[in-house]
Amino acid sequence: MNGQVRIVGAGLLGASIGLALVGKGVDVILFDASKASLRLAIDYGAGRAAASGDSPSLIVVAVPPDETADVVADELATWPDALITDVASVKSGILADLRDAGADTARYLGSHPMAGRERGGPISARADLFLGRPWVICPHAHSTADQHRVLEDLALDLGAVAVTMSPDEHDASVALVSHVPQIVSSVLAKQLAAAPDSAVGLTGQGLRDTTRIAASDPTLWVQILGANAPAVSSVLSAYRDDLDAVIAALEAPEAQGSRRALAEAIAGGNAGVARLPGKHGTAKHFSTLVIMVSDVPGELARLLTEIGELGVNMEDLRLEHSPGAQFGLAEIAVLPEAEKRLVAELEARGWKIAGENA
Amino acid sequence: MNGQVRIVGAGLLGASIGLALVGKGVDVILFDASKASLRLAIDYGAGRAAASGDSPSLIVVAVPPDETADVVADELATWPDALITDVASVKSGILADLRDAGADTARYLGSHPMAGRERGGPISARADLFLGRPWVICPHAHSTADQHRVLEDLALDLGAVAVTMSPDEHDASVALVSHVPQIVSSVLAKQLAAAPDSAVGLTGQGLRDTTRIAASDPTLWVQILGANAPAVSSVLSAYRDDLDAVIAALEAPEAQGSRRALAEAIAGGNAGVARLPGKHGTAKHFSTLVIMVSDVPGELARLLTEIGELGVNMEDLRLEHSPGAQFGLAEIAVLPEAEKRLVAELEARGWKIAGENA
Repeated sequence: MNGQVRIVGAGLLGASIGLALVGKGVDVILFDASKASLRLAIDYGAGRAAASGDSPSLIVVAVPPDETADVVADELATWPDALITDVASVKSGILADLRDAGADTARYLGSHPMAGRERGGPISARADLFLGRPWVICPHAHSTADQHRVLEDLALDLGAVAVTMSPDEHDASVALVSHVPQIVSSVLAKQLAAAPDSAVGLTGQGLRDTTRIAASDPTLWVQILGANAPAVSSVLSAYRDDLDAVIAALEAPEAQGSRRALAEAIAGGNAGVARLPGKHGTAKHFSTLVIMVSDVPGELARLLTEIGELGVNMEDLRLEHSPGAQFGLAEIAVLPEAEKRLVAELEARGWKIAGENA
Repeated sequence: MNGQVRIVGAGLLGASIGLALVGKGVDVILFDASKASLRLAIDYGAGRAAASGDSPSLIVVAVPPDETADVVADELATWPDALITDVASVKSGILADLRDAGADTARYLGSHPMAGRERGGPISARADLFLGRPWVICPHAHSTADQHRVLEDLALDLGAVAVTMSPDEHDASVALVSHVPQIVSSVLAKQLAAAPDSAVGLTGQGLRDTTRIAASDPTLWVQILGANAPAVSSVLSAYRDDLDAVIAALEAPEAQGSRRALAEAIAGGNAGVARLPGKHGTAKHFSTLVIMVSDVPGELARLLTEIGELGVNMEDLRLEHSPGAQFGLAEIAVLPEAEKRLVAELEARGWKIAGENA
């Protein structure tokens, strides 16, 4: 990054970008409508207050989705020589709002760092928040290749992986991989709210995983979903149609075609989940071992140390907890060719293997 | 367990029960319609073949849900002095089928060990498969307290936690915490099957968690869902009604009430997920730290060893992987009072903390 960077919005994302750029020696000018947030972010080293004579070449708008278009329009009007980007998790609507407002969109190029945790104020800011994460850049008819390179440099400076998509392609993609999963998970968890304790007490790891993101912030999500309503609605309608086929099959389980409808839903899920990228960006198949770990500090570390000593690389690890039990289960994914030896070596060292799945 | 135990079905569950009981010195008689499976399970030490003069006092039927009622009826007719249980994941329909068939249900008491992984044959069997897991026992109008105690003893011998529910209560509970989550996850993953690579490439941990169980076996799940159709249909219809409210709001995001409908879905999910039992059977709130771990064998073990040396007990741990990146993120849950010191100590030891959330 050459020149001054102005960041509008000193929340988690804005302050994290500021911290990272300050660390790279960039002159970062911070602004936030809340004087308290601004002062806090400056105290944390995420930038300095605006001063007369400032002349930013890049402005990053990091405010809530509902406010983004208005703030970008203001910044475009105030700084006639700067390139403006934003980091909101929806893109088409913001561009349309800017056009409707007659803003100079030739100097706007939207982007979206997929940092995963959009919660927390400047206190939670980290210079390495974006490390290894996709940062989607969304060119449009009036943006230029030079502007694109500036944002690629920004992503690079923050350790992110730049990805290019049109605003519509971005919105459709995040509807599928982020917004619809949020709704599906939240609505599932909502069914638990009034359930009997005895039913909730039977909860296993499957329900726990499926509802983890249901703990997300309602205020932020109402804005995201509202701003990406057409794309989310489209994916969610297809989801609902598939769900309706399952419900129809369950209402007449002995009718011709019902078993097939159920099979297609579950097998379709198999096909979809097989497409998810694995650890290094490819879909690999691993063997998983489930190993019992007593609930004593250091036991899991001892297990992982021994696996390391055996020269086996762990591809994934999950902990499962049993209700009321004094131990947990560690589910470890390894390459299939390593499985047999690992099981034998671990059992020889006294570990209990509670299950294996290819 | 006193007396002989006969196990019908030498798959993962049947063979695991056999292994555990043999380990306790019980005389276990195994049977499977497949001679190959039977021989394999006997080779693994899960029991012995039937012999003339056998007189089992308890029979455990561990066959697929679709076959359970027929097999239980056969066993009731063949062994007039034995108590028969089964381990299928649905209960009301089996009891109704037995009554319809005129079986002697006064000697039948159904149960369901929630062992989590219903896949795999006798090769995957483990004596400790049930350790710490709920084992639901489902008394009915013609079962007795003595029979109940026999199954409680069986659960105890296998290290499981006995739970009592009526068959209807069991079926409604597992519809909520297991069967509907399976459908919701599978149908979500199904939407990915035909998605563009670019969209799937943006997948984060949220989608990964939400679709993990979508890898489940279609054949088994068609049987489970078919056998519990009324209870699953009831929960799924309530889910669909809530989903329809979200879809209606997304189709008219600016209409009065739409934002509120979205907020209620997400906030309702917050309320539901807060009810899930935590590590020791209670819903606790933990602080989570996200720590960067380079992709070198032994790095995670070193991190956990150092956390152990600091005397901090880890309440949960998850690994996140970034697409194409050479490191992962370890998300660690600790008691809130331990968080500040742990962050300071880990940073002093050179670990990078990528995020904190209370």
